[in-house]
Amino acid sequence: MPRVIRSGRVVVCCVFMAFGGAGSSRADEGMWLFNRPPTELLKTKYNFEPKPEWFDHIQRSCVRLSDGGSGSIVSPDGLVMTNHHVGLDQLERLSTPEKNLLKTGFYAKTRDEELKCNDLEINVLWSIEDVTGRVNEAITASMSPAEGNTARQKKIAEITKAAEEKTGFDCQVVTLYHGARYHLYSYKRYTDIRLVMAPEGDIAHFGGDTDNFEYPRFCLDMCFFRIYENEKPIKAEHYLKWSEKGAENGELVFVAGHPGRTQRLYTVDHLKFLRDTAYPFMLNALWRREVQLLGFSARNDENARIASGDLQGVQNSRKAYTGILAGLHDPEIMKQKTDAEKKLRAAIAANPDHAAQWGDAWDKVAATEKTYESFYERYATLEGRASSGGSDLYRIARNLVRLAEELPKPDGDRLREFHDADLDSLYLRLYSPAPIYDSLEIDRLSSYFALIAERFGADDSIVTRILAGKSPRDRAVELVKGTKLKDVAVRKQLAEGGKDAIAKSNDPLIRLAYDIDPEARAVRKRYEDEVESVEKLSYAKIGAARFATYGENEYPDATFSLRLTFGEIKGFQEDGAQVPAFTDFAGLYERHKQRGGVEPFELPQRWVDAKDKLKLDTPFNFICTCDVIGGNSGSPVFNRRGEVVGLVFDGNLTSLVWNTAFTDRVARTVAVDSRAIIETMKKVSGAEALAKEIVGK
Amino acid sequence: MPRVIRSGRVVVCCVFMAFGGAGSSRADEGMWLFNRPPTELLKTKYNFEPKPEWFDHIQRSCVRLSDGGSGSIVSPDGLVMTNHHVGLDQLERLSTPEKNLLKTGFYAKTRDEELKCNDLEINVLWSIEDVTGRVNEAITASMSPAEGNTARQKKIAEITKAAEEKTGFDCQVVTLYHGARYHLYSYKRYTDIRLVMAPEGDIAHFGGDTDNFEYPRFCLDMCFFRIYENEKPIKAEHYLKWSEKGAENGELVFVAGHPGRTQRLYTVDHLKFLRDTAYPFMLNALWRREVQLLGFSARNDENARIASGDLQGVQNSRKAYTGILAGLHDPEIMKQKTDAEKKLRAAIAANPDHAAQWGDAWDKVAATEKTYESFYERYATLEGRASSGGSDLYRIARNLVRLAEELPKPDGDRLREFHDADLDSLYLRLYSPAPIYDSLEIDRLSSYFALIAERFGADDSIVTRILAGKSPRDRAVELVKGTKLKDVAVRKQLAEGGKDAIAKSNDPLIRLAYDIDPEARAVRKRYEDEVESVEKLSYAKIGAARFATYGENEYPDATFSLRLTFGEIKGFQEDGAQVPAFTDFAGLYERHKQRGGVEPFELPQRWVDAKDKLKLDTPFNFICTCDVIGGNSGSPVFNRRGEVVGLVFDGNLTSLVWNTAFTDRVARTVAVDSRAIIETMKKVSGAEALAKEIVGK
Repeated sequence: MPRVIRSGRVVVCCVFMAFGGAGSSRADEGMWLFNRPPTELLKTKYNFEPKPEWFDHIQRSCVRLSDGGSGSIVSPDGLVMTNHHVGLDQLERLSTPEKNLLKTGFYAKTRDEELKCNDLEINVLWSIEDVTGRVNEAITASMSPAEGNTARQKKIAEITKAAEEKTGFDCQVVTLYHGARYHLYSYKRYTDIRLVMAPEGDIAHFGGDTDNFEYPRFCLDMCFFRIYENEKPIKAEHYLKWSEKGAENGELVFVAGHPGRTQRLYTVDHLKFLRDTAYPFMLNALWRREVQLLGFSARNDENARIASGDLQGVQNSRKAYTGILAGLHDPEIMKQKTDAEKKLRAAIAANPDHAAQWGDAWDKVAATEKTYESFYERYATLEGRASSGGSDLYRIARNLVRLAEELPKPDGDRLREFHDADLDSLYLRLYSPAPIYDSLEIDRLSSYFALIAERFGADDSIVTRILAGKSPRDRAVELVKGTKLKDVAVRKQLAEGGKDAIAKSNDPLIRLAYDIDPEARAVRKRYEDEVESVEKLSYAKIGAARFATYGENEYPDATFSLRLTFGEIKGFQEDGAQVPAFTDFAGLYERHKQRGGVEPFELPQRWVDAKDKLKLDTPFNFICTCDVIGGNSGSPVFNRRGEVVGLVFDGNLTSLVWNTAFTDRVARTVAVDSRAIIETMKKVSGAEALAKEIVGK
Repeated sequence: MPRVIRSGRVVVCCVFMAFGGAGSSRADEGMWLFNRPPTELLKTKYNFEPKPEWFDHIQRSCVRLSDGGSGSIVSPDGLVMTNHHVGLDQLERLSTPEKNLLKTGFYAKTRDEELKCNDLEINVLWSIEDVTGRVNEAITASMSPAEGNTARQKKIAEITKAAEEKTGFDCQVVTLYHGARYHLYSYKRYTDIRLVMAPEGDIAHFGGDTDNFEYPRFCLDMCFFRIYENEKPIKAEHYLKWSEKGAENGELVFVAGHPGRTQRLYTVDHLKFLRDTAYPFMLNALWRREVQLLGFSARNDENARIASGDLQGVQNSRKAYTGILAGLHDPEIMKQKTDAEKKLRAAIAANPDHAAQWGDAWDKVAATEKTYESFYERYATLEGRASSGGSDLYRIARNLVRLAEELPKPDGDRLREFHDADLDSLYLRLYSPAPIYDSLEIDRLSSYFALIAERFGADDSIVTRILAGKSPRDRAVELVKGTKLKDVAVRKQLAEGGKDAIAKSNDPLIRLAYDIDPEARAVRKRYEDEVESVEKLSYAKIGAARFATYGENEYPDATFSLRLTFGEIKGFQEDGAQVPAFTDFAGLYERHKQRGGVEPFELPQRWVDAKDKLKLDTPFNFICTCDVIGGNSGSPVFNRRGEVVGLVFDGNLTSLVWNTAFTDRVARTVAVDSRAIIETMKKVSGAEALAKEIVGK
C-alpha cells in the first residue's frame, strides 16, 4: 500500500473519479469529511442511518502516525493497530545487527517489555471547525496572488496558534478543495509510543515487491503499538471493538483513515503537467534509486538490513506512480476528465455572473503549470520531494540552519514548518537518537549529488558549490565522515546557540546547508508566489463554481486528514475469471509451495511449523470497494456496529488510478481479515494475551 | 564485462587516457592497430621484438562475433573461444522451457551434437589498407559539411563494394581518430556457427550483478563455438596454441580483441555533452528498464528465463555507464583533459599556419554538441540507441519497411546499413527463426511507448501517432497480438514484395513502422548533417593537429575493430590492502559459503559435488593491466609465444573510466585463467575430449 511518508522520501498519495457532476450514479466513491458525512448516500443505498455519536466515536478511535500512515485504537489500554509497513521505520530503528526485528518479529509478553520508540508521534482528531471565512478575511481585492498567499499563511498561523493556546490541542488548518475551504483540525498529540507486537517481515510482506499491489494476497501486514502518557498506558475514551466473526461477502464495510493526496479535482491541464513533467521526473528518480539500493543491499546482509526501509519505500512508491501514470496515459480516463471539465465550464459560461467570477480559473491553472514546468526540477531537487536524497544528516543540518534563521522572526513570518504550532514535532525528530549509518548516508548523499549533477549539468553553479571540487561520492564521504551531527548533544547545542552558533560552526554539513539555503529559499519563494498562490486562488474559484453548479455535496481531494469511506466486500472479474474476495491460510501455503519458497516467498520457520495447528480455511486477506489511497495504510475496516473486521494494507494495481478518478469495476482495497489476526496471534506468535486484550476477553 | 551488443540494446563501449602529449610516461596504455603495432614500446619497455608474422598470426587467429564481442580460434578444427555472456543470446535462443541451457550448461560430446546457431556470424580480419586519401578525394573545398558527409559516405560505399567484388572478402571502411584516417578492413565471414560447450550460468556469472565489475572474482565466463563451412568444421590456417602452465605474476601478456568505443580523443566540450546530456539520458533509460525487467522476471520462472539476456545486458550497461559517468564527474579527470587540450591548442595557436588550418576545430565541436543537445532525446528514441525498445518484431518491421525503400536506390545513395556490402548480415538477422516471445515483446514495446510518452509528453504528435488513441500497454498488446511477423515466411514475402508489398500490407507493425519512418529519417538526417559531419571534419583537423604536434605514434579511439594491447599480470592496492592478481577454486568455495549459497552466489550441484575432485589451488581468475573496454569480452590473453593463458571477461569498477582516460593505478582487466578452463572441463563438465582438442593432445 502506498503510504504517506513523513519527509525526505517521496510522498505517495494518489486516486480516480468519474466526476460526471451531480446526479451521476457514483458507485461507493468518496473520501468524506467527518463534519460532512455522507448520511444521505448511506441511507439511500444501504438503508443505514448512523447517529452523530457513531461518527464521533469512529473519529476519536482513529489515529494518524507521524511516520506516515493511519491506525486505530483497539483496546481501552491505548493499543494501536496499524500496518507492519507503517511501523517499518520504527522496527528498523529498534533493530541492531544482532537483533533484527524485521527478520524475527517482536512480541512484548508484558508491558515492561514494550519498546519505546524514539521519534514516533500519534495524533487523534478531536474536533473540526470551518474557518474559511476567517482565513479569507486576510485577503483584500488589491493584493496580488503572491501577497494574498503570504497574508493567508500568516492568518492561518495566527488561527492555529490561538487555537492551540486556547485548547491545549495540537492544531492544524487543513486546505480543502485545493483552496475553496479551510477547516481547523484539533488533535490530541501523543509522543510516548511503544512497540507491542510485529510479526516477521517475511509474512508481513509475503510476496514482496512481486505481489505488492496484486491480488490474491497473503500478507499479515500488521503492527501494534501502545500509547503511553506519564509512563502509563492511556485509558482510551474511544476505541474500536473487535469482530471475532469478521465480515462476509457483500457486506457493507467502512474505512476511516488518512488518505494522503488525490488529484481528482485537478484541471485537465494540471493533470497533464503531472503526466508529462512531475511524474516522469519522480519515476526516474525512483527507478534510479531502486537500482542503487538493490546494489547497496546486495553487498552484504548488514547493508540489506539498514537499507530495507528505503528500498521498500522506493519500490512501493515506484509501483504506485507507475500505476498512476498508466492511468494518465489511458486516453479513456483523460477523455472522461476532459468531458467533465467541458461540461462544468459550459455551465459556468452560460451564466454571465458566474463566468465573470470564475470563468478564468482553468486558464490560470494552465498558465501557472507552464511556469512551474520551467523550474520544476530545480524546485523538486533543492526544496521539494527529491531534496536531501533521504539523508537524515543533511535534513538535520538544514533544519538547524533554518531554525536559527526562523525562530527570531514573528510566528506568522516564518517558513510554515517552523510555526510555533509545529515546533514540538520538529524537535522530536531533530533530537531523535535513532541510529544513523555512515554507509547508507554516504550512499544516499552521493546518489543525491550525482542526481543534481545529472539534471543540471556538472558545471551548474549550485552543483559546483555543493560538490566543492570533489566527485559526488568523494564529497559524500567527506561530509558524512566529517560531520558531528550524529551526536544529539551537538544538535541541541547548535539549536540552542541560534544564528551565532550556526555562523561559527565549521561542521561541513552545516556549512553546506548554510551555503545552499539562499538558493533553496529562492526557488521555494518562486514556487509559492508563482504557482501555489495561483493554484489556491484558481481552485477556490473552481470549487465555488462546482458548488454553485452541483451543490456542496462533493468530498474534497485527500489531504492526509481523516476521512470516512464505505463500500462492499466484493471480488472482481479478471481475464474472464472471478477473483474471490477472500483468501485463506491454505492459499498461503499453496503459494509458498508453488514459488519454491524462495525470497520473496519465504516463510518464517515457525510459520512452516504452524501449518498443522492453524485452521487453514481462516479468511486471511480480503478486498472491498472502499475508496482509499496512500496514507490509508493501517486504517481499520469496520462494520455498521463499528467493530473491526479488517486492516487496510494495500490496493490492487488497478486501484492506483484512484489517484485521479474512482472506479470500482476491478479496482479494490486490500485488507487483512480480523479473524486471521487473532488466529495467528494464538497459534503462531504466542501472543495469546494480546489476542485476549483485543477481543476484550 | 561491458560488451558491444549488436543492435537494439544499448551499446556499451568505453575507456580513459592520461593524454599528456608525446614524451609523457604512459604505463601500458594503448589499443593498437595491427597495421601500426607498438613495436618501439614493446622493445623499449619489455625488450620484446616480435616479427611481422607474429602480428599476422595473432590477427588471423582472432574473431569478432556479430552478437557483439570478441573471440579467438583455439584449435585447427575451427573451435572458437569466447565468453558465456557473449554467447548468451544464442544460448537463450537454443533453449526451451523444458531444456534451459542457461541453467544446465551444454556440452556436445560428438560433432553431431553441436547445435547450429540461427543468426550468429563470425568475422576474421584478413587484411588492412589505408584508404584515407581515396576517401578524402571525394570532398571538395566548396562542399558544406553535410554535403561532404554525403559524398564521403558514397565514396566509402563505393570503395567497400569494389573491394568485396575484387576479393570476395567482407569489407568495411573503418573511421579512425574520429575522421582523421580511414582504413579498409577485409574479413573472412562465417555464418554456420555451432555451439560446442557452455558451463552452467550460475558458475559463468557467479556473483551476478553484485560482483560484476568487481575483483576478486570467481567466474567461468566461457563459451565455445565451432566454425563450419559446407557442413564441415573449417581447417583453420591460423589458431592460438594453448598454455597449460598459464602465466605468472608480473608476466608480460597481450590481449587482442575488438574494443567497442572509447572517447579518449574527444574534446572537453564533447565530453561535457556526454556527461550532462547523453549519459544521464541513457542511464535513466537503463534504470527504468532494469526495474521493469526485474518485475517482469519475478512474475514466474519462464519470464525469468526469456528475459535473462535483456536483464543481464541492461545491468551490465548500467554498471558500465555508472562507472564512466563517475569518471566524468571526477574533477581530477576533467582537469587532466582540460590541461591536455589547452596544451595542444596552445601549440597549434603558436604556429600561424597550423592555427589557420585547424585552430577552429574545438569550437566547432562545442557548437555542434550544443545543437545536438537540442534534439538528442528525439534522435536517441526514434533512431538511435533507445529506438525500438529492444523489440525484435518492431526492428524486423522497420528493416522491412526501409529495405523496400532503399533497395531500389543506387548503392551509394542508400542508408548506410543497406549498402550491398551489408545485406548478407542483414538478411541473416531478418530471417532468423529464433523464437520471439509475445509476453516479452509486449513488455519491451509498452516500456518503449511509455518512455517516449514520458519524454515528449503524451500530446506530442509523434506519440499520439504511435499510440493511436490507446494506452502504451494496450497499444503494445494490439501490435504484438496482431502482427504476423513472427512467421519467417511472411517476412520473406514482404522483403521480396518490395515497396508494393509494404504499401499494401495491413500488418499493424508494418503500418506503424511505415508511418513513423519519415520522422525517424528526418531526425537521422539532422544528426548526420548537423552533428556527424561537423564532428568528422573537426576531428580530422584535431587529428592532423595532434599528428603535427606529437607525431603519428598514437593509437586511435576504439571502433569495434581489432586492436592489440599489452600489459602485466598485476594485483593492486585497495584501502591499504593488497588485492592479489590471482584467485583460485578454494576462494570460490569460500565465497559460496560466506554468502550462504543464495542467488547470485548459488553453485550448480555438480560444482558442489566436484569440490573434492578439483585441484583447489588452480588459478581461477586473474587481473592484468592490458587496456580493454566493452567489446573486448571474449578476447584471448596470450603470452610472448602467442599461447593462450586466459580469457578476458571483465574489467574492475575503476577500469570503467578507461572510456575517457587510461590509468593503471587500480584499474584492471579481469580474465579466466587457461588452467581453470582445462581443469573444469576435465573434472566438472565431463568435457575431456574438448580439453584434449584445446591443449592439442
